[in-house]
Amino acid sequence: MKYPEPLQKLIHQLRKLPGVGQRSAERFAFQLTDWTPQELKDMGKVLAELPEKLLTCSQCGCLCDSRDCAYCHSARRDAAALCIVACPKDVFPIEETSGFRGLYHVLGVTLSPMDGRGPEDLDVSRIRARIQDNRITEVIIALDSTLEGDATALYLKEALKDLPVNLSRIAFGIPMGSSLDYVDGGTLAQAFVGRRGF
Amino acid sequence: MKYPEPLQKLIHQLRKLPGVGQRSAERFAFQLTDWTPQELKDMGKVLAELPEKLLTCSQCGCLCDSRDCAYCHSARRDAAALCIVACPKDVFPIEETSGFRGLYHVLGVTLSPMDGRGPEDLDVSRIRARIQDNRITEVIIALDSTLEGDATALYLKEALKDLPVNLSRIAFGIPMGSSLDYVDGGTLAQAFVGRRGF
Repeated sequence: MKYPEPLQKLIHQLRKLPGVGQRSAERFAFQLTDWTPQELKDMGKVLAELPEKLLTCSQCGCLCDSRDCAYCHSARRDAAALCIVACPKDVFPIEETSGFRGLYHVLGVTLSPMDGRGPEDLDVSRIRARIQDNRITEVIIALDSTLEGDATALYLKEALKDLPVNLSRIAFGIPMGSSLDYVDGGTLAQAFVGRRGF
Repeated sequence: MKYPEPLQKLIHQLRKLPGVGQRSAERFAFQLTDWTPQELKDMGKVLAELPEKLLTCSQCGCLCDSRDCAYCHSARRDAAALCIVACPKDVFPIEETSGFRGLYHVLGVTLSPMDGRGPEDLDVSRIRARIQDNRITEVIIALDSTLEGDATALYLKEALKDLPVNLSRIAFGIPMGSSLDYVDGGTLAQAFVGRRGF
């Protein structure tokens, strides 16, 4: 459709959001035309300032809003436990569970030879240095159950196996509250493999 | 979830978009953290500049990108035909069909006593003045088939009936390509009411 240029530009920008096609972008854009100039300015400011306001911890790679990482610089975290995640956003659902109180290490990438991402991109030497320098005793790998996640977990297992740490990977199986009827075969098979005595 | 403040602010802003809940806003926000600073600045600029760049024609109420409305100031439009729509965005799908080449009149609101919008908000005197001053001969009401749309259409019919114009409302019936099986009873009944000789 032929929209006035400012609207067309806005739709073009909104289409870059994940899962937003032409129709959704149009819907968003038209609703944005109803926002007050102040609201639009505020939103524009939040976006433009994001790179300078949202920081990444140089040590663990987590997102933070000050130079002092909420995890690395907190005395209330268990500095002997390290959880390895693929990307910064994975940290938030883990924090939400309150099940892990240690530190994090964000890989930033997972192994994917198809996309040209090999072992050198994982920077294992930094993980090894962190483990050794901080006398970490427990390392939990919290990667997705995907081809890339599995490959990366296996690679890390090999790369860290000579260190004196308790290395584990989070469990895969039936989601809580779910019934066997609704779970796919791969998950069910994994649930059998990962069965625990009780 | 407890996100760093800049991220939290962004999620808060994104939730204001139509149909965007907490989860979608989080997904959008995390993808935005992957945009380059330049991309974010561009997006912010498009938003902040929207009110000054996207103009509303003072005569017809359509959105436009210059002082000269693409409809009111075009010599290629049929100045004797006027299409009344509820809001500026309704103009675009009508233009897309190329079935109407006249001018528009955007009401801005529809009648809705429940929301405190009465006849005085429709500003019928402006429509009457436009019709008389521009010697308009055909008026097509293109309002939604909703309670508000129906009430507004009926009100306009009464308010304009003494003028020497051919007044009509767009047809309601079975959508093109649709089968009777899949159409609701109200639509089917309307299709019978609106039947045409052929």
